[in-house]
Amino acid sequence: MVGKQKITGPAFFIGKEGDGLISFGSGQPDLPPPKEIFKGLENPRLFKYGLIQGDKKLREALAGEYPKAKAGNFVITNGASEALDLAMRVLAKMPGQNKILLCRPYYYSYPPIVEFAGLQPIYTQLKNGLIDLDDFKKKIKKVKAVLINSPSNPTGRVETMETLKAIERITKKLGVWVISDEVYKDLIYGRENYLIKGRHVITINSFSKTYAMCGLRVGYLYSPDREFVQKITDMKVHTSMNTNSMGQAMALSAMRAPRSYVKNQVAIWEKRRDLIYGGLIKLGFDLWKPEGAFYVLPKIKNTESALGELYYKYKVIVYNGAWFGAPGRIRLSYALDEKKIEEGLRRIKKFLKGKESWLK
Amino acid sequence: MVGKQKITGPAFFIGKEGDGLISFGSGQPDLPPPKEIFKGLENPRLFKYGLIQGDKKLREALAGEYPKAKAGNFVITNGASEALDLAMRVLAKMPGQNKILLCRPYYYSYPPIVEFAGLQPIYTQLKNGLIDLDDFKKKIKKVKAVLINSPSNPTGRVETMETLKAIERITKKLGVWVISDEVYKDLIYGRENYLIKGRHVITINSFSKTYAMCGLRVGYLYSPDREFVQKITDMKVHTSMNTNSMGQAMALSAMRAPRSYVKNQVAIWEKRRDLIYGGLIKLGFDLWKPEGAFYVLPKIKNTESALGELYYKYKVIVYNGAWFGAPGRIRLSYALDEKKIEEGLRRIKKFLKGKESWLK
Repeated sequence: MVGKQKITGPAFFIGKEGDGLISFGSGQPDLPPPKEIFKGLENPRLFKYGLIQGDKKLREALAGEYPKAKAGNFVITNGASEALDLAMRVLAKMPGQNKILLCRPYYYSYPPIVEFAGLQPIYTQLKNGLIDLDDFKKKIKKVKAVLINSPSNPTGRVETMETLKAIERITKKLGVWVISDEVYKDLIYGRENYLIKGRHVITINSFSKTYAMCGLRVGYLYSPDREFVQKITDMKVHTSMNTNSMGQAMALSAMRAPRSYVKNQVAIWEKRRDLIYGGLIKLGFDLWKPEGAFYVLPKIKNTESALGELYYKYKVIVYNGAWFGAPGRIRLSYALDEKKIEEGLRRIKKFLKGKESWLK
Repeated sequence: MVGKQKITGPAFFIGKEGDGLISFGSGQPDLPPPKEIFKGLENPRLFKYGLIQGDKKLREALAGEYPKAKAGNFVITNGASEALDLAMRVLAKMPGQNKILLCRPYYYSYPPIVEFAGLQPIYTQLKNGLIDLDDFKKKIKKVKAVLINSPSNPTGRVETMETLKAIERITKKLGVWVISDEVYKDLIYGRENYLIKGRHVITINSFSKTYAMCGLRVGYLYSPDREFVQKITDMKVHTSMNTNSMGQAMALSAMRAPRSYVKNQVAIWEKRRDLIYGGLIKLGFDLWKPEGAFYVLPKIKNTESALGELYYKYKVIVYNGAWFGAPGRIRLSYALDEKKIEEGLRRIKKFLKGKESWLK
């Protein structure tokens, strides 16, 4: 792509929109947030410093979603990103191993977050997008923590109950922490989410995907271990103080919105999932059928060329699987309306003409 | 204080209010933010991920406040805290010394932020709350960066132009970074703020104090060095993504509010400064007259007992100077209305009865 800026990572595309672009890039809902969230924003308390751990009412509401949880088990964070970052930084200061086990393909921020904390990522390769328990059992012995993500970004797959329970058991026995990133827990098509449990489990979550409020950056960390929660809070008081108060107020209003909001969203996602999955299969792509979240990760050769040509020539944004530890694949988010998905598929079809061998 | 919870740090007091309490604790304006900031919050774009570096319009508005600056020289952060944290983490990854020079007394988050990044704080003791250039010159040779804070929290003092220019010169010559925390730049009673300049200077700032929006957590980092700005952005994309969009939108509206808002605030602060300074002098305290920000740091013996008794018996919150590297002193924020300051002074007077020797 002579004269064109090199596409270096997801951040390249942030803010790129309009001008006929079809973006299968960023993983953010295009649907509106619950309308209730604009209530009560002129409250003068919101302009004051809040509790570092997060607004108590919001944490109490969350406690209702986790069995036996109390408000004291949660820390509200600037998105799931900050929750992960703080968790890694706190783990790094604790004695023991300094390795963290990641599943590959992974969410693209996982390796840098681990490394920024001074920890070392090691990897277990997913088999067909799912955890391979044999390899997992070998590698889990040498690590301080494992970071799992089901439903997964970028694979769109959901681990089986058996796998999740096995992980729960194995890590408990070995005294290995589990960090379970469940930001897509409300976007599963087949079954309810299974919450991995135990004192050694740190759950990461977010309001971004469930309530379509990515830009507000409100996430949270849940742990049954109050000491761990305290350590997170003790760090956060210095690194960012309370999570932004407006976002927290909106998150609380969103939680009070009728549950039908979430249900309706899932129905829409499922329809889109069928549309994009069917469309890509028809075009000859090799991919997994998503069971949760809103991503597909089809194979394609010459991935970098594909990205550049799709963006600069066909005005279609897709992400490089290599950014997620999945070279030879592209990630498409289907967080856009059906008409756009259809138009995107048409453009990909045009792009593929004469490139049938790229899909082999 | 038998049976009372130990007062361990500033976080102990967060959320404590009402019930007749007079709080000289937290450093946050009690005045309302500019009324303009509630405009335009229902914009659907605010719910989407934004630029990691921060909203472009907001950065353009900031560029107008810094000579020769462009939007590209800024990163909007979750308060000045995140800006400092990111700056330290990025500095830690750069080659060279691993020591950071801090001025003591210091803002209480400075030492932990430096340590969390894997850097080592060393100290230059302030003389009468101001930088002692002789000691500064000795210690600056051994460090990667110096962190200064004028107007200062907790001393309330403002460095002279001569000192600031000397620091600018000395650090430039030695190739030492200056991180200049200027969050109180708009709250100086005597003169305009002097912006320390140079490619080696990283300016940290915030909307919290100027526009009374602490809870929204919107701060920023300014650097003439685009490479440094890029490194901050490259880290932030993983650690927290964009700064919360609602806060950024409100910050932009606040900047567009008439400048009289800031002027009026400063006049109020100055009146309160005179009230608390005069009152404490009258009670026999030894303290510096604040030239900026909204803190006084008077001496008192048996500081811990004083804190406990003032809080539990007289319902007056003050902070322990020891939290700020100033043992034997207490910090009082005068970010509360005159009536409350007067009532607080009356209670302190009662508390002091028979304890005159504590002020010697």
